[in-house]
Amino acid sequence: MLRELRYSSLFRETIRRALQEDIGQGDITSFLIIPEEREAGARLIAKEDFILAGMPFVEEVFRAIDPEVRVTVHMPEGFALRRGDIIAEIAGRARSLLAGERVSLNILQRISGIATLTHSFVGQVEGLPVRIADTRKTVPGMRLMEKYGVRTGGGTNHRFGLFDGILIKDNHIEVAGGVKEAVLRARKGHHLLKVEVEVKDMDEVRDALDAGADIIMLDNMSLIVMAEAVRFVQGRALLEASGNVSLTTVRSIAETGVDIISVGALTHSARAADISMKIRHGS
Amino acid sequence: MLRELRYSSLFRETIRRALQEDIGQGDITSFLIIPEEREAGARLIAKEDFILAGMPFVEEVFRAIDPEVRVTVHMPEGFALRRGDIIAEIAGRARSLLAGERVSLNILQRISGIATLTHSFVGQVEGLPVRIADTRKTVPGMRLMEKYGVRTGGGTNHRFGLFDGILIKDNHIEVAGGVKEAVLRARKGHHLLKVEVEVKDMDEVRDALDAGADIIMLDNMSLIVMAEAVRFVQGRALLEASGNVSLTTVRSIAETGVDIISVGALTHSARAADISMKIRHGS
Amino acid sequence: MLRELRYSSLFRETIRRALQEDIGQGDITSFLIIPEEREAGARLIAKEDFILAGMPFVEEVFRAIDPEVRVTVHMPEGFALRRGDIIAEIAGRARSLLAGERVSLNILQRISGIATLTHSFVGQVEGLPVRIADTRKTVPGMRLMEKYGVRTGGGTNHRFGLFDGILIKDNHIEVAGGVKEAVLRARKGHHLLKVEVEVKDMDEVRDALDAGADIIMLDNMSLIVMAEAVRFVQGRALLEASGNVSLTTVRSIAETGVDIISVGALTHSARAADISMKIRHGS
Amino acid sequence: MLRELRYSSLFRETIRRALQEDIGQGDITSFLIIPEEREAGARLIAKEDFILAGMPFVEEVFRAIDPEVRVTVHMPEGFALRRGDIIAEIAGRARSLLAGERVSLNILQRISGIATLTHSFVGQVEGLPVRIADTRKTVPGMRLMEKYGVRTGGGTNHRFGLFDGILIKDNHIEVAGGVKEAVLRARKGHHLLKVEVEVKDMDEVRDALDAGADIIMLDNMSLIVMAEAVRFVQGRALLEASGNVSLTTVRSIAETGVDIISVGALTHSARAADISMKIRHGS
Amino acid sequence: MLRELRYSSLFRETIRRALQEDIGQGDITSFLIIPEEREAGARLIAKEDFILAGMPFVEEVFRAIDPEVRVTVHMPEGFALRRGDIIAEIAGRARSLLAGERVSLNILQRISGIATLTHSFVGQVEGLPVRIADTRKTVPGMRLMEKYGVRTGGGTNHRFGLFDGILIKDNHIEVAGGVKEAVLRARKGHHLLKVEVEVKDMDEVRDALDAGADIIMLDNMSLIVMAEAVRFVQGRALLEASGNVSLTTVRSIAETGVDIISVGALTHSARAADISMKIRHGS
Amino acid sequence: MLRELRYSSLFRETIRRALQEDIGQGDITSFLIIPEEREAGARLIAKEDFILAGMPFVEEVFRAIDPEVRVTVHMPEGFALRRGDIIAEIAGRARSLLAGERVSLNILQRISGIATLTHSFVGQVEGLPVRIADTRKTVPGMRLMEKYGVRTGGGTNHRFGLFDGILIKDNHIEVAGGVKEAVLRARKGHHLLKVEVEVKDMDEVRDALDAGADIIMLDNMSLIVMAEAVRFVQGRALLEASGNVSLTTVRSIAETGVDIISVGALTHSARAADISMKIRHGS
Repeated sequence: MLRELRYSSLFRETIRRALQEDIGQGDITSFLIIPEEREAGARLIAKEDFILAGMPFVEEVFRAIDPEVRVTVHMPEGFALRRGDIIAEIAGRARSLLAGERVSLNILQRISGIATLTHSFVGQVEGLPVRIADTRKTVPGMRLMEKYGVRTGGGTNHRFGLFDGILIKDNHIEVAGGVKEAVLRARKGHHLLKVEVEVKDMDEVRDALDAGADIIMLDNMSLIVMAEAVRFVQGRALLEASGNVSLTTVRSIAETGVDIISVGALTHSARAADISMKIRHGS
Repeated sequence: MLRELRYSSLFRETIRRALQEDIGQGDITSFLIIPEEREAGARLIAKEDFILAGMPFVEEVFRAIDPEVRVTVHMPEGFALRRGDIIAEIAGRARSLLAGERVSLNILQRISGIATLTHSFVGQVEGLPVRIADTRKTVPGMRLMEKYGVRTGGGTNHRFGLFDGILIKDNHIEVAGGVKEAVLRARKGHHLLKVEVEVKDMDEVRDALDAGADIIMLDNMSLIVMAEAVRFVQGRALLEASGNVSLTTVRSIAETGVDIISVGALTHSARAADISMKIRHGS
Repeated sequence: MLRELRYSSLFRETIRRALQEDIGQGDITSFLIIPEEREAGARLIAKEDFILAGMPFVEEVFRAIDPEVRVTVHMPEGFALRRGDIIAEIAGRARSLLAGERVSLNILQRISGIATLTHSFVGQVEGLPVRIADTRKTVPGMRLMEKYGVRTGGGTNHRFGLFDGILIKDNHIEVAGGVKEAVLRARKGHHLLKVEVEVKDMDEVRDALDAGADIIMLDNMSLIVMAEAVRFVQGRALLEASGNVSLTTVRSIAETGVDIISVGALTHSARAADISMKIRHGS
Repeated sequence: MLRELRYSSLFRETIRRALQEDIGQGDITSFLIIPEEREAGARLIAKEDFILAGMPFVEEVFRAIDPEVRVTVHMPEGFALRRGDIIAEIAGRARSLLAGERVSLNILQRISGIATLTHSFVGQVEGLPVRIADTRKTVPGMRLMEKYGVRTGGGTNHRFGLFDGILIKDNHIEVAGGVKEAVLRARKGHHLLKVEVEVKDMDEVRDALDAGADIIMLDNMSLIVMAEAVRFVQGRALLEASGNVSLTTVRSIAETGVDIISVGALTHSARAADISMKIRHGS
Repeated sequence: MLRELRYSSLFRETIRRALQEDIGQGDITSFLIIPEEREAGARLIAKEDFILAGMPFVEEVFRAIDPEVRVTVHMPEGFALRRGDIIAEIAGRARSLLAGERVSLNILQRISGIATLTHSFVGQVEGLPVRIADTRKTVPGMRLMEKYGVRTGGGTNHRFGLFDGILIKDNHIEVAGGVKEAVLRARKGHHLLKVEVEVKDMDEVRDALDAGADIIMLDNMSLIVMAEAVRFVQGRALLEASGNVSLTTVRSIAETGVDIISVGALTHSARAADISMKIRHGS
Repeated sequence: MLRELRYSSLFRETIRRALQEDIGQGDITSFLIIPEEREAGARLIAKEDFILAGMPFVEEVFRAIDPEVRVTVHMPEGFALRRGDIIAEIAGRARSLLAGERVSLNILQRISGIATLTHSFVGQVEGLPVRIADTRKTVPGMRLMEKYGVRTGGGTNHRFGLFDGILIKDNHIEVAGGVKEAVLRARKGHHLLKVEVEVKDMDEVRDALDAGADIIMLDNMSLIVMAEAVRFVQGRALLEASGNVSLTTVRSIAETGVDIISVGALTHSARAADISMKIRHGS
């Protein structure tokens, strides 16, 4: 699900807690070394090529620390940065800049890393009518920000939690006694959400379709079986491929004709983008 | 700093929030498909080789969800698991198992991933009198757990935040006007914490030592300069190497004779360990 | 959306705050008058006929106040009570019973009132293939409990908030520039949630259907137009009737053939069920 | 007790939680359909006649969502509105208006409903020296706002919780062993709060007065006995009538000469006032 | 106002925060030195004579830290301890005892100190019909516990905050324009709480009585004027003496015949009682 | 450890809770007596001689209550005030001034009291190369503010909690089996924090030094033994004297040559400074 962050208090909470975690009783080093009212300027600089995502969070970090800090962003969200690009300039009390540095970078590097990895996957399937989606494999407390990173990288959000989507997985089917049974029970109990079900072979694809599933997740299937499923379903349900998708395999999977490919790695294995914050001497 | 978690309420808060983030208003799928009091059993299974870390957090997840769930852990923390190992068995209401599955795995996979990467770095320097330390490059809200992962993998914790250690970095020195000046100011203002300072060349090493620094961080130095610093300092201060340390370079760095090597990658670029939770049919 | 409450921490928070609101610094009257360890028993008694809903919340109230209080529930949720029925017996410290009395009743009377009103609406449309659904017109902080009351009374839950459903209303259409435009934009941006749109006449019904809406909300339409919409749509989308639905009009509306009738009154105008808690002399 | 809200952080908390409950991870519909910076205007319009109460809460809702939204209130609190009156105009980002619409209306409709019902009761006893008071029969979390609605409608607030008033009810007397005993115990233990006691017949009225009660609550008494109590007490204590008071009976009760009439229905059975928010096309 | 703590969640919150403040990320010393499962026993010992108050809070501290710790209390609350008395024995994990030691002592020493000072004041006025009351001069966050200490020492609680009592002080009178004016306004606006007013001379005593004040606070008056006020008022209102009351002056003040003497020093200047916790070798 | 407060959210939380504790549902007295928009001015006046500390907290109190209140501070933190000095002038709504009065004074009087007592201790050792340090004997929730008071009075902060310093006390040694054993274990487990150990005689001083302790705490030793320890250690470790230090004994202790003297009384037995807030008639 795509989401808009401005009106959600959830990510502000995350930032507030991140600052408390890092600053705690106070920044001793700055206190001992930096004069209280010394002004300074800083630059956020790209140390490698990547897709920028998360500057609104950095702005929120400094707003929370010291409303007098001025953050001037030079690059738009989702932009493909080159090594050496100046992302933003930050000016204000030197102590405020130092207090917000680490939390800003931790967030910006991670969310940009996720956007960058997503962008690579999306690039691999260029021209094909398929969406690259995320999963719930996110770091506790960071889901809203991480899913924002996926969107910024060109991906699509899957459900945000257990509360806003019906997804019947192998573990549910095991307990419920079969794909058909499970899908029917879900459809009968609910009429407003689409019903998605995970299947492992063509028999279950047929059961899912018979039972009226809106989306069928093809879990860890071979390319051949996926292609067969696409032919069989003929658009009567959306098809989502899932399971150990990599940059190498994603295009072949897309070429089977599935509608969605969900990739846990987007969030659970993204590498932090390399970004530094350099402070210049204040007046 | 090494820490003990049992008496800290901080990680319980993180788990509580992670569950709220994932479950929200409730698990619709289970509600529609799984009978309310159906019992089931589940196994946590290693899908690759890795170092186990984080099972106490998994136990806390299920304790928070449903105190009647029983978690039986078969493998000790820090153990080197082989693909196929059964980490733990979990029994209780099927709905409770499903409600805790994703949060448990998200934590366990990440913390084990960190322990595993730490263990690799530690393995590279085996036999040498050096410590592998973490940094503050952690995911917001997860620092306590992630640093636990580093310890479990055989690493050492650096400071937990700005509040429990003095570390004078380039940005401080820039504002304060020199290494010597900064170290003296810190030592004068404080007598209980060790004073650590980041230096970029031999001149600054000398200034730091003259000013009485307890720990000198050699930032992004060449192996040759590091070795020279070790010879010059002769144990009068601890020496910490820092900056883009990789599995390939870590042993050479250790062989220069530094006391500590800090590695941001331990936390910011660890890959999630592959672990699955498989539910068996309940009675 | 149907929801299961057991794994959601949200309603526990609501109960905890309700107790803090009512008890604050402590119950002065009990403190002055009731001996500290005096035991007593109490009965929850129906003072009129109604549908019971909310006893799990009452149990949670007393669990939060004093884990030694024993609540024995005699009537199942959703049961049609008669005046005089004993709903439950509660035993424990007299002070604990008095401390939980008001909050218990405030919740139980309201949620039962909602279930009862829902049950009346559902009764009016008996035999017809239509669902009675709630809206977001709930009391702040009580949505989860109130929607539980609707389910217990035989109704269906609509979305829980702005985050778990797409519902394009007149205000959106006004800003977006037309039904068709709005539906297409929503469908393009999202593939996992159904798209619902509010329309005010047959032209808009056609636009909505053309654009591929999954659910069409007929807002404040006459019975004749609703019937026409049903004939026109022929099952290609779900139809939801909405706007000032009353017990008198609901059956006529249902007979037009719409699939869902949403009723704000279920939550915003339900009358509290009459229930009393009578304490008997303790030993 | 009358209260002033400006300095209490409690109702701001309630509003913050209401927004989190409704908006959660974000407003998907607006996100998909409304351009981010589109401006719009909205009007709050009375759809029936009622007493206005709660606009300060609406202002707080929009302040919490987006400080740039401008709310211009046209009608004073406590004013008797006529159908069609424009209560306020709201201008700002269209998305901000949509994000705050439902929570604003849910609060304003409920609090105005309470003020309106209170005003009806107060109107029934016009000219008589009696106060119409509320009870603790409020919705969890809403007590401060609901009691504000009662005051705005011309009523009087009874105690806010168990912590700020002594009220000895039947359940206390049952455990304590008699009215006299209970009142004496309360007066001995406390000297700063008035002591109120609930009685059910003239014998208990006498006991209460003998024991020095400041306020005597006549619970579910006939008009004749109430009148007798008034004559007997002769102003030596305040008399409060209580129990199933309705708009039909309230004037007869007042004519017995009691000082206060407390009415649970003011809060537990008020109907939501009918108010709509209409958004006009933005620029 | 006297209060009962068991049902208030407020002091549990205070204890939870106190533990977080002291333990934070964990107890490093214990972690490094004490084996994880080592058992030990500890004794709380009186190091001077004082009145015991606060052991229920100590029990709550250890319950919060580790439910398996066993606290056996040997002395009742309010008891006059002699130097050397063993207050309680505590057994469990050595690390748990150490984690709770400081917070336990900080609370117990302070609350016992308050009880002890209160007891001294109460002892000074023995035999006289006067109450020694506290004020709002408490440490932020500790009011509930500190007022419990006053009660345990034999004192009486004044109001708990601005919300549960009407006390018109010099600053209010200055703004309102006179004692009489202020008292009348309060009585007219409210009927359930007693009205207390602070006066500075006999003229104001008369005004207060004329206006119908329930309690008159004689602020910083000479003994002669206080005695005159007592004679003049003749029981028509309660009289409370206030302002720089000390152990030396309290009996003379009491002998004037006032009903209540309020003493800020009870809470703002109590000395911590001397108590130690001694751990014995575990097995 | 010295700390800087600006970037810590902890003391803001304490102030927010203090206001909630005092104001709760609202200030009834002001509500009944003071016109809503009446303006007034107030002065904070020293009623005795003392060291000022805590005005930043007072400013925060009024910022939290009403951002339109203007606080003009006339005296710098740490200044030695004389009876009668005007500390600050405060202007704004009369109700806002009254709402913040008590919490402001409770904090300012306590923190100034701590600064004043600290200043006396520091004055006693003037000219000697020794630091006066605080302990963890602080009031729950107030540690950050109280330690700020110590610094402002010229003292030094010891560790802030169990998490930011290693201090091996008698209770640890008892469990660990000796000073040497304990120190070695701590040094081996940790390399970034100094290791401090408490000793009770010269044998333990030697063990501590042998084991490499950085700081040795001489607990309750006689002056003669302390002097001997100073001679023996010869600067190889810092020496800290501890245990029942009073204004009378502190200079003699300092003259033994120890580096630090820690004094629990600074926080646990400081007397509140006498300060009043006087409101002048508003316009």
